[in-house]
Amino acid sequence: MFITFEGIDLSGKSTQAKMLYSHLKKNNKKAILVREPGGTVISEKIRDILLDKSHSKMFSLTEFLLFSAARQQLTEEVIKPHLKKGYFVICDRYYDSSTAYQGYGGKVPMDTILRGNKIATNGLKPDLTFFIDIDMKESAARRKKAGKSKDRMEQKKIQYFNKVIKGYRELAEKEKSRFKRIDGRKPIEDIQNEILNILRKRHENV
Amino acid sequence: MFITFEGIDLSGKSTQAKMLYSHLKKNNKKAILVREPGGTVISEKIRDILLDKSHSKMFSLTEFLLFSAARQQLTEEVIKPHLKKGYFVICDRYYDSSTAYQGYGGKVPMDTILRGNKIATNGLKPDLTFFIDIDMKESAARRKKAGKSKDRMEQKKIQYFNKVIKGYRELAEKEKSRFKRIDGRKPIEDIQNEILNILRKRHENV
Repeated sequence: MFITFEGIDLSGKSTQAKMLYSHLKKNNKKAILVREPGGTVISEKIRDILLDKSHSKMFSLTEFLLFSAARQQLTEEVIKPHLKKGYFVICDRYYDSSTAYQGYGGKVPMDTILRGNKIATNGLKPDLTFFIDIDMKESAARRKKAGKSKDRMEQKKIQYFNKVIKGYRELAEKEKSRFKRIDGRKPIEDIQNEILNILRKRHENV
Repeated sequence: MFITFEGIDLSGKSTQAKMLYSHLKKNNKKAILVREPGGTVISEKIRDILLDKSHSKMFSLTEFLLFSAARQQLTEEVIKPHLKKGYFVICDRYYDSSTAYQGYGGKVPMDTILRGNKIATNGLKPDLTFFIDIDMKESAARRKKAGKSKDRMEQKKIQYFNKVIKGYRELAEKEKSRFKRIDGRKPIEDIQNEILNILRKRHENV
């Protein structure tokens, strides 16, 4: 089973992905947790290029092609082989991030995004996607509290992120059975329970 | 005017590109010389990932997407702005390399290549492409003589490069007015003269 987590930074999606992974491992399930961009030697090097603050001149389409390259390598080297062996594969971000960020947020035409996503994944789709939804006010408050600095992606303008959030919400409306929107302001444990309840409807014994 | 050079390694294409650049500069023409993958800070970092010998697990499609990302950045940051200002832009490799290497040589479907090339260049096409043609026997002999070691791309098998050469020759047949095949076994000065003669038919005063 292929499960992905989506949302803007500081939404808590990485925390939830880790909690789900720990839960599955504790219950003796075969599971791996990977992140995007990254998860392979090559993809982590691509990640470094994408997040480097000095790369302020990077074009939206270059960004999209780099995310796609990292995704293709991760999909073929790690995700597909583990799905074949019956693993739960949990991925912190996948192609929906490109649709939301480079498509809704950036300047890449949506048909290029949809086509590129299909190419980079060879048509692989998550079985279930958890979208942890918070708004920019909440994200900014959490960043301040955590004292977290911004990488190149995070340095974009507020209007950009508002478009990204709007994009995620549209995706959740369009693909209701796969794309589950969860209120990210709830307590961490409540969110994890909500995730487990949704997952149990698809898969017994988790 | 946008001029590209194509061919397998050690064909002499880079030497010819440099000679043409020097010739144009000596004649007080506005000209720049760039190489692919590379030519911008971001694209050179992508080049490092592509040529790193330790990346033996890289998939054909990842490779193609990385070349495309480097190409997009180079096209928008350097090539287009210089063409706008009336420069001769000379590029050592461009999208025909992807068609020949990842398409004819590798496993990426040709329609993905053609679509990807169009996306990465935003439809920009070279005005003139010089394909310096040598076979693998000649390339191997030159490599031995030069004592040159191989990067990741150059470590692929002979059958791969034979397919690349076949691909280049097909491209030259298909696009005769743009894609000029030149016998790479001729003396360096003769090849440069052939290039200048072809160029003079398109552009006075070079």
